Amino acid sequence: MNIEMIRAAALRIKDHARLTPLLSSPFLDKIAGRRILIKPECLQHTGSFKFRGGWAAVSMLSDDQLMNGVIAYSSGNHAQGVALAAKEHGAPAVIVMPSDAPKIKVDNTRALGAEVILYDRATQDRDEIGTRIAAERGLTLIRPYDDPQVIAGQGTVGLEIAAQSAAMGVTDAEIAVCCGGGGLTSGIALALAADAPRMRVRPAEPAGFDDVTRSLLAGTILSNEKLSGSICDAIITAQPGNLTFPILQAHCGAGVVVTDDDCLRAMGLAFERLKIVVEPGGAAGLAAALFYPDQFEGDTVIAVTTGGNVDVPTFRRALETL
Amino acid sequence: MNIEMIRAAALRIKDHARLTPLLSSPFLDKIAGRRILIKPECLQHTGSFKFRGGWAAVSMLSDDQLMNGVIAYSSGNHAQGVALAAKEHGAPAVIVMPSDAPKIKVDNTRALGAEVILYDRATQDRDEIGTRIAAERGLTLIRPYDDPQVIAGQGTVGLEIAAQSAAMGVTDAEIAVCCGGGGLTSGIALALAADAPRMRVRPAEPAGFDDVTRSLLAGTILSNEKLSGSICDAIITAQPGNLTFPILQAHCGAGVVVTDDDCLRAMGLAFERLKIVVEPGGAAGLAAALFYPDQFEGDTVIAVTTGGNVDVPTFRRALETL
Repeated sequence: MNIEMIRAAALRIKDHARLTPLLSSPFLDKIAGRRILIKPECLQHTGSFKFRGGWAAVSMLSDDQLMNGVIAYSSGNHAQGVALAAKEHGAPAVIVMPSDAPKIKVDNTRALGAEVILYDRATQDRDEIGTRIAAERGLTLIRPYDDPQVIAGQGTVGLEIAAQSAAMGVTDAEIAVCCGGGGLTSGIALALAADAPRMRVRPAEPAGFDDVTRSLLAGTILSNEKLSGSICDAIITAQPGNLTFPILQAHCGAGVVVTDDDCLRAMGLAFERLKIVVEPGGAAGLAAALFYPDQFEGDTVIAVTTGGNVDVPTFRRALETL
Repeated sequence: MNIEMIRAAALRIKDHARLTPLLSSPFLDKIAGRRILIKPECLQHTGSFKFRGGWAAVSMLSDDQLMNGVIAYSSGNHAQGVALAAKEHGAPAVIVMPSDAPKIKVDNTRALGAEVILYDRATQDRDEIGTRIAAERGLTLIRPYDDPQVIAGQGTVGLEIAAQSAAMGVTDAEIAVCCGGGGLTSGIALALAADAPRMRVRPAEPAGFDDVTRSLLAGTILSNEKLSGSICDAIITAQPGNLTFPILQAHCGAGVVVTDDDCLRAMGLAFERLKIVVEPGGAAGLAAALFYPDQFEGDTVIAVTTGGNVDVPTFRRALETL
């Protein structure tokens, strides 16, 4: 896993992924007490950054592998990212999704042409299911974060942040990144270590599911006690990945833990001040930057709003915070 | 009024306005039966394209004019655009706003440092009020659309559409633009006539306030019978401008008329499929492209979602359409 893989992924993705802008609002700066920039990956194809990793991985497959098809397991955003990347490569896709995933994510994944297989998050192991079906049906498994090409694809967000912020004269900043298994977080960290060494990534997680924060403090991989019970479904994973954790250790600052209510408030402010739609798990980084300013250093925090695939009832709750 | 003024405005704006991306969704393509691209100017500073015209006009003022300050009248978006442009130039700003403008727009204009003067849309003439206060207080009046530099600033949206769509291989398209007084519509039309001559602008208006559509058909400026009664407050004007109408006549295709309900549905779909927040008047172009496909020609329609400054109750109505 190295910066050249991220640069190569950026070249493959260039005409396919969307170059999301950097947003800002003086009203958000005022809340945080410093300059806040927002990288809205909710505006990416399929509504999250996951399209980048999906495309980066699928675009490396051989013709035979593409013909046989791919399989992924995902709470929804990786599912859609892989499904669209596969479709655009003419490859069939099977997606293993938890039965409690937001309906919009399941529906969208099917609409993108994928076969969806549901599993019970509490009692079944998705990696076991994915590995087994991959073997039975000759599919290539694309893991959501512990895959070098997926990390490379997500890392293109970091290359863009470095270039876009430099164009604005910003070279020193902390980057608040919503963190599940750590694919995006580690990819951005690697990209910034190369292209913006005075920037530092800070993983953001929901309270009760702060495996990365605790693992970084302990210096070893720790797990969450449970795998459900937060509205931040997109970033609930058992523990940091075996590939991603050493990268997080090498390059990231301390994690920042936020509550579900913080995420709803950040979603409301993103609606009001940025005119973007963010899902709960995609708002954790912005919530950290806005509501926990004492945990950050420096004049500028760049928050990545990682996804926007939110059901209407949950979005209504966010509007109620305004 | 010519293309060189738009190119000059683009140079002045370059490091200040946001380069909004082109968005898309296969789900919207399916509804419209053709490729739909969206230029989300709701993501512009102050939540609408109006910042471009405000900046273009204010950046042309002399030091003396800046010291004395500027005045603008506006239902809200031009107000915020001028207020922020004035603030960034260190100039005081007075904004004349209708008393029924959405609260968020009045609050935001004040928060941007402007002095707000409210008037009654039904009984008072905003141009008379603006002209009078400008004379009394030595302020420079920046009109919302009948001002060459404002048109030039809005026209930078057209330069970007031409460049961004060409990069995607799109050179033939119709452009659905929400149209009030015609500043944005005429600016885009002029820009495309120069940089993308195979693209054609189509003004979109709310039913009952279709002055531009009727004026284009009649070949002369016609007025609306009333000035309130639509949720599309941002694009309700009495009639096309004296500067803008000849440009619209020379370069635009026929207008497309949509209902308030169409705009709410388009707002809901923009939430669901694009993850952007659009206000009713800013959704008219997208509503035209999605729900009146027979009124357009060609494989591609590019809709400009012009603003996102919507109150929560109105946005809730849009969510109810999903």
